Amino acid sequence: MEKRAFLYEGKAKQIYATDDPNLIIVHYKDDATAFNNQKKGSIAEKGVMNNKIAQAIFNELAKHGIRTHFKEQLNERDQLCEKVTIVPLEVIVRNLIAGSLAKRLNIEEGTKPDNTILEISYKNDELGDPLINDHHAVALKAASYEELDKIYAETRKINSVLQEFFASRGIILVDFKIEFGRTANGEIILADEISPDTCRLWDAKTGEKMDKDRFRRDLGNVEEAYQEVLKRLTSN
Amino acid sequence: MEKRAFLYEGKAKQIYATDDPNLIIVHYKDDATAFNNQKKGSIAEKGVMNNKIAQAIFNELAKHGIRTHFKEQLNERDQLCEKVTIVPLEVIVRNLIAGSLAKRLNIEEGTKPDNTILEISYKNDELGDPLINDHHAVALKAASYEELDKIYAETRKINSVLQEFFASRGIILVDFKIEFGRTANGEIILADEISPDTCRLWDAKTGEKMDKDRFRRDLGNVEEAYQEVLKRLTSN
Repeated sequence: MEKRAFLYEGKAKQIYATDDPNLIIVHYKDDATAFNNQKKGSIAEKGVMNNKIAQAIFNELAKHGIRTHFKEQLNERDQLCEKVTIVPLEVIVRNLIAGSLAKRLNIEEGTKPDNTILEISYKNDELGDPLINDHHAVALKAASYEELDKIYAETRKINSVLQEFFASRGIILVDFKIEFGRTANGEIILADEISPDTCRLWDAKTGEKMDKDRFRRDLGNVEEAYQEVLKRLTSN
Repeated sequence: MEKRAFLYEGKAKQIYATDDPNLIIVHYKDDATAFNNQKKGSIAEKGVMNNKIAQAIFNELAKHGIRTHFKEQLNERDQLCEKVTIVPLEVIVRNLIAGSLAKRLNIEEGTKPDNTILEISYKNDELGDPLINDHHAVALKAASYEELDKIYAETRKINSVLQEFFASRGIILVDFKIEFGRTANGEIILADEISPDTCRLWDAKTGEKMDKDRFRRDLGNVEEAYQEVLKRLTSN
């Protein structure tokens, strides 16, 4: 499958058309951004690593019956994926409280709530991807109440599969962000990527951060952390 | 019923104990604040007007079977109310989009969404009463999922009664904030106040604002607006 028209450039990926109107090519870049684009940089070989990490995660999800947009890896930086229209919501799952929520509610990072916290943000860079609730999402026509229920049910399944997958590799899945898309026939499926760019991953033994927080917070050894995640997810 | 120990001072009210451990006296002040206490002032005779307006609203709700903490008006500024432990959530109902939400989502003030928007904020001045969702409320132990469901169901009933009540007096109920409390036997009932301090009220004919936005936005004629709301709600 060859890249055709360039369709869209995101912060970490480019999207290209293919000869099949239902398929796109996702190209993973090394660019890294944080704090709604206020911090910009790049992480060496990130695109190569995240392409492989995302593939390992999508394959694991598929094994557990979760439909995703992923079809196959084409080369070091390119994935063939099903074409979807992205639902303009960032769906966030928090198994432990960290990052923006820790700050927002003044709760110590790493606190484990009694429940799993799901959140949605409205995907809109100008507004800073604000936290919203279901009623806002419906008012914005981002999704219907029924679609949101489906998205949350699927998100909980994904969380349960991924918590176990990461745990088996000695990694705590602290939180993560996913996006969904509508296929040509209106089905809502997991899209975008899942990688250390979009998850908080802590080493189960040391608590060491193995994700984009190393870039966000200038902790050093960013590439090494991504490399370690890749190694653990792809070794048997 | 006489005021006994002073219990608590809020932004617009003082709370006193009575000889009955299940009853308190709510004293309505003229103090007005906005933008999480950044703007402070007072509105002449506001306490007297809001005491009467809240009474008219609580009575209307009672007629429709809504349980509230209100017992009786004692004098110009004092109400006898059931003692409750406040659920630390501000429950917001938006029939039209205005104020902070209009800004947050960059939607023109006055836009009517297809759905009724319910919101909760975590009552915490230091954190600026942040918007939260149900999962955050449960994680914060502010309420359980079951309690939230009850609160939302009651809130929808209150909205429906009040929309009609205000409409019959030529006023559009744009949005409002309510609070709930737990009684001694654990029942969750409507507490706090409902007044032009806690609602956006627009004249149905002219669109003129008849609420605290006149104070927030320095529109003038603040007392006159509250007086007009009182007149409309209490005339037959």
